[in-house]
Amino acid sequence: MASSSFTETSTSGPLALPREVLIVDVGPRDGLQNEEHAVSTEEKIRLINGLADAGVRRIEATSFVSPRAVPQMADAADVMAGIERRAGVEYAALVPNVRGLQNAIDADADMVNVVVVATETFNQRNVRMSVAESMAATDEIMRLASDAAMPVSAVLGAAFYCPFEGHTPLARVLELTGQFADLGITELTLADTIGAATPGQVAEYTAAIKARWPHLQLGLHLHDTRGLGLANALAGLQTGMIRLEASVGGVGGCPFAPGATGNAVSEDLIFMLESMGVRTGIDLEGLIGVSRQVATILEHDLPSRMLRAGPPQPITASN
Amino acid sequence: MASSSFTETSTSGPLALPREVLIVDVGPRDGLQNEEHAVSTEEKIRLINGLADAGVRRIEATSFVSPRAVPQMADAADVMAGIERRAGVEYAALVPNVRGLQNAIDADADMVNVVVVATETFNQRNVRMSVAESMAATDEIMRLASDAAMPVSAVLGAAFYCPFEGHTPLARVLELTGQFADLGITELTLADTIGAATPGQVAEYTAAIKARWPHLQLGLHLHDTRGLGLANALAGLQTGMIRLEASVGGVGGCPFAPGATGNAVSEDLIFMLESMGVRTGIDLEGLIGVSRQVATILEHDLPSRMLRAGPPQPITASN
Repeated sequence: MASSSFTETSTSGPLALPREVLIVDVGPRDGLQNEEHAVSTEEKIRLINGLADAGVRRIEATSFVSPRAVPQMADAADVMAGIERRAGVEYAALVPNVRGLQNAIDADADMVNVVVVATETFNQRNVRMSVAESMAATDEIMRLASDAAMPVSAVLGAAFYCPFEGHTPLARVLELTGQFADLGITELTLADTIGAATPGQVAEYTAAIKARWPHLQLGLHLHDTRGLGLANALAGLQTGMIRLEASVGGVGGCPFAPGATGNAVSEDLIFMLESMGVRTGIDLEGLIGVSRQVATILEHDLPSRMLRAGPPQPITASN
Repeated sequence: MASSSFTETSTSGPLALPREVLIVDVGPRDGLQNEEHAVSTEEKIRLINGLADAGVRRIEATSFVSPRAVPQMADAADVMAGIERRAGVEYAALVPNVRGLQNAIDADADMVNVVVVATETFNQRNVRMSVAESMAATDEIMRLASDAAMPVSAVLGAAFYCPFEGHTPLARVLELTGQFADLGITELTLADTIGAATPGQVAEYTAAIKARWPHLQLGLHLHDTRGLGLANALAGLQTGMIRLEASVGGVGGCPFAPGATGNAVSEDLIFMLESMGVRTGIDLEGLIGVSRQVATILEHDLPSRMLRAGPPQPITASN
């Protein structure tokens, strides 16, 4: 996987940040799935191609799930068939089981994401399985994926806070991380699913996992419900995260509704990272252009600060 | 001053944060001054008393400036006369010159803030003086303040980025910090006046100043134009900031207008800090209540995430 080339050497500044980070844009899947506005297959394909053109090197393109459960993703195979595959870009698909994995293999996804939610209540509501059953399903997926040489990336949902059970204890996260590691998982993403994590918690959990499993490639799935998406990203990068997940424009949920749980905004994250000398390979202006298109498609304002204020530039006679 | 009691010992977590921080709420001055909606003297007094009740230990209550230049602050003396003085709370006033200082002394302010903008163009536009003239005015203020035993806190405006001249070089900030130190300034606030600073820059500038002037009590004035207010706060705290300035509700500017430059939101900042074990002495629920009142007074939505989503709490049968 491309992420394996990411080094963990630090920049020279006082914050000891990594020199580069892999940005995963989850807009086409996690983002659009949580938007009320229906988006056509053609628009999804244009969005994914636009992200790749802007330099995004991993895109969560779709999910192979039951079209009854998630009608927004019913066109997964058509989306995967329609996109132009760019060199150096990983097109990932979320899969809940071996049937989804087989569909992802058939659709020539570059990798699959599998999710286990850290708490029983939320995992039951999500997939009607216990956490142990989801781990067993992950084991099954890992075996078939291995036969098909399909990389598997694991996601621990509600890794910091569960909307039903509250604070997710570190001990629980370490226990489940150990189970993932035992299954052969080499890449794990901690998901702040409802946007309730804080920088101290992100730093504590990341450092604790890195201390036990130093070779595990850690990622952080960011939401911005309480305005902490970028601060959490900063804390994660300082303690061992080498991959950050956000969505172009911050699509997902309704960011202006009470209790909303939009993804962190990719272009705002890129602005912060590049300004600090943390390379992403992404062209900020290109990404802002994609965000503008998304706002047009969805017909509502997006929480993107880069769309609203743009990168700072001095006022001159001409502007 | 209360801030002198702040220790710089760190918490045990991987981010090495201070155990406590002084929060300055600038809503009544910097915030309201930049709101279009006129706010009555009575409402200002209620706001300031509400902030003190919530546990805010320093409040930028008003400014003693020309009422022609800043009509929103024409009632400065009435505001200072009307508020209830709470023990342990510092009521600060911004002053541009010795006349303002004298008014602040007459009004029994606990301390005064003086501003010099780091760049010639912006300082000229702000007060029609060169930076050298503003430094000379600061010297004059310092002398009179010393006679009156009035504490002076210095603010370096546009310390990271100037809307006219662009990036503010670190060398310029160090030069002006040295001039402040030579005048006897012991407390300095770096202002991210238009919300263009990034965490790497905040960390770099803070660490550089602390290395040269270890006893200078440093503060960071936060704006959230590009969504980086809380990430900048985090970076500042890790590198030597012991004081953070934000406004209740994020009042100031119009946060939803293009290029808007609202202050960072005090209650969102408190949520982040307290969740990380950095004590502020502020009651979050109380502060959210004040924010709700402000939204009612101003008759528009505020960018506060705590108002919109609130602190995380588990969904139960009863909610």
